[in-house]
Amino acid sequence: MSTSINLAVIPGDGIGQEVVAQGLKVLAAVLPQDVKLETREYDLGAQRWHRTGETLPDGELEALKDHDAILLGAIGDPSVPSGVLERGLLLKLRFAFDHYVNLRPSKLFPNTATPLAGRPEIDFVVVREGTEGPYTGNGGSLRTGTPAEVATEVSVNTAYGVERVVRDAYERAAARPRKKLTLVHKNNVLVYAGHMWKNIFDKVGREYPQVATDYLHVDAATIFFVTQPERFDVIVTDNLFGDILTDLAAAVTGGIGLAASGNINPTGAFPSMFEPVHGSAPDIAGTGKADPTATVLSVALMLRHLGYEEQAVRIEDAVAADLAERDGTFRSTDRIGDALAARVAG
Amino acid sequence: MSTSINLAVIPGDGIGQEVVAQGLKVLAAVLPQDVKLETREYDLGAQRWHRTGETLPDGELEALKDHDAILLGAIGDPSVPSGVLERGLLLKLRFAFDHYVNLRPSKLFPNTATPLAGRPEIDFVVVREGTEGPYTGNGGSLRTGTPAEVATEVSVNTAYGVERVVRDAYERAAARPRKKLTLVHKNNVLVYAGHMWKNIFDKVGREYPQVATDYLHVDAATIFFVTQPERFDVIVTDNLFGDILTDLAAAVTGGIGLAASGNINPTGAFPSMFEPVHGSAPDIAGTGKADPTATVLSVALMLRHLGYEEQAVRIEDAVAADLAERDGTFRSTDRIGDALAARVAG
Ligand SMILES: CC(C)[C@H](C(=O)O)[C@@H](O)C(=O)O
Ligand SMILES: CC(C)[C@H](C(=O)O)[C@@H](O)C(=O)O
Repeated sequence: MSTSINLAVIPGDGIGQEVVAQGLKVLAAVLPQDVKLETREYDLGAQRWHRTGETLPDGELEALKDHDAILLGAIGDPSVPSGVLERGLLLKLRFAFDHYVNLRPSKLFPNTATPLAGRPEIDFVVVREGTEGPYTGNGGSLRTGTPAEVATEVSVNTAYGVERVVRDAYERAAARPRKKLTLVHKNNVLVYAGHMWKNIFDKVGREYPQVATDYLHVDAATIFFVTQPERFDVIVTDNLFGDILTDLAAAVTGGIGLAASGNINPTGAFPSMFEPVHGSAPDIAGTGKADPTATVLSVALMLRHLGYEEQAVRIEDAVAADLAERDGTFRSTDRIGDALAARVAG
Repeated sequence: MSTSINLAVIPGDGIGQEVVAQGLKVLAAVLPQDVKLETREYDLGAQRWHRTGETLPDGELEALKDHDAILLGAIGDPSVPSGVLERGLLLKLRFAFDHYVNLRPSKLFPNTATPLAGRPEIDFVVVREGTEGPYTGNGGSLRTGTPAEVATEVSVNTAYGVERVVRDAYERAAARPRKKLTLVHKNNVLVYAGHMWKNIFDKVGREYPQVATDYLHVDAATIFFVTQPERFDVIVTDNLFGDILTDLAAAVTGGIGLAASGNINPTGAFPSMFEPVHGSAPDIAGTGKADPTATVLSVALMLRHLGYEEQAVRIEDAVAADLAERDGTFRSTDRIGDALAARVAG
């Protein structure tokens, strides 16, 4: 725990600006007086790309390395071809800064809407691998645009990459009361990657006899997410399955307006990056309708990562209290931010 | 429409035997007197593999070609290493018989349980590509079992393969009252395959101006499956995304006890294969707890494919009526089969 935080801020596109502003507001309110908070905003995203054609120039990538952490709003705009900003900015950061633990907690807070009947108890964490799998950009297209086109996508998986994230997941499971870890993959079809994941999962598991383990195919896992989500404690899975599962998890725990995430480099070699799971929602940008809670909860994950556990808990408690008092009355992005800032300061 | 049906039956593993028996019972009851039904049972699955080490020998693959259709129960047993029967039998059949349309209807019948609050109206069909994508078995493992292992999985996609399944999906959408087709992929990350899918989807769409189209990333699609499933009519998607989405679809429409599927070769060059979406459920095999409805509905898909539309509808109506009268009292696999057979016999 440092006595200063040098934070990079990438508001990005759409509602990114608005929600990040609330995240920073709550951060300023929760930090002890003697912690110096410095922020530098980076102008990256759709507008920058339209202006200069750049997504993430080397100079800015270098500069970002000097920060303690990165807070990111949202990336993506319909005016930019699909994939340009995702690959050129968001995934470039995750890969360049070796964010191999993509941490996504899912919790159904009291008094929040869930599409699930019976309001099951939901409180699990997905540890999504962040630097391998089908996300490596490996692949290509031959005879593009012709009737003879062949397009490939190569999922690249290494024992090195799988073992470190599996180990991280066991550590997290061991530290939780229920101590249960579920591996999700599709090893009956993706036999090469799937068997490697399973073998490493079993091998590392022998070092954690206190952790109960389980394996599910990804298709079966989606069933349990809606029929029996209470069975999950910690889930470890590959990059693409984690992407899919965490959106579904967000949907059953009150929506992506509440889902936080951390792109973590546990070694500290590079700054970790915190962002809401939701996208830039261009349809509601500027309307004040965006819920900044996911960003605020991402700030809590950031504080925990930087060693400010007490402040992280204060934010999470404030969010729980705020959600408990919601009665359906509309509150703007700004007002929700104000309310949370007041609570954490209190 | 032929006046005889020469059916191959692969009961397979676990509850496969039990549910297939009910499917055949209902089939026999619904067919007109003058249609000659011949069946030949194939002993394939876990027991065969344990006995002989074979999954699907060439002789049997050849023999299967001579049938009008295949009815399959379920494949898979914990005593067989994951992937052996899936790749060596089930996927081998789908690939050898070029089952490029994996058809999976999802409908929430009245009086059936759904984990979703508010019981939305659900009635959509997933057209899952069945012969390409990450299911091709392309890939490998280097330095297997060592800390330096690298495992790859290659998703192979061709314009040929994508266009034919996309066209099939447009045809199905055009024939339905709502005429809406949604493409699901992840073209912001899997840019090579994703852009090819999207381009072909748009190109073929110009031939179907009456069909409204939509695109969703797979992660977002899972959200809508639980928050707004009524928005879907026909969905077309790749092999792996289709696998995941159809289990989730089954979960929200009463469970995999009801989900039917057809592995269809629309050209008729090879027999199509019909199977419940559920697995072999070894935990309940032999207990009479398996619901044969998914298999019976798969028989309806088979009859429709073979030109027996009236009989297909009769089965679907019988299932709807049976479900409407369920009151939670336990009925064995056999009794449900009897009830459905009695209904279709009229
Ligand atoms: C925007 C996209 C590239 C990203 C992903 O697929 O990882 C998003 O869906 C997420 O989950 O953070
Ligand atoms: C058993 C498995 C190979 C299969 C698949 O992944 O296609 C199953 O999950 C299905 O959906 O039919």
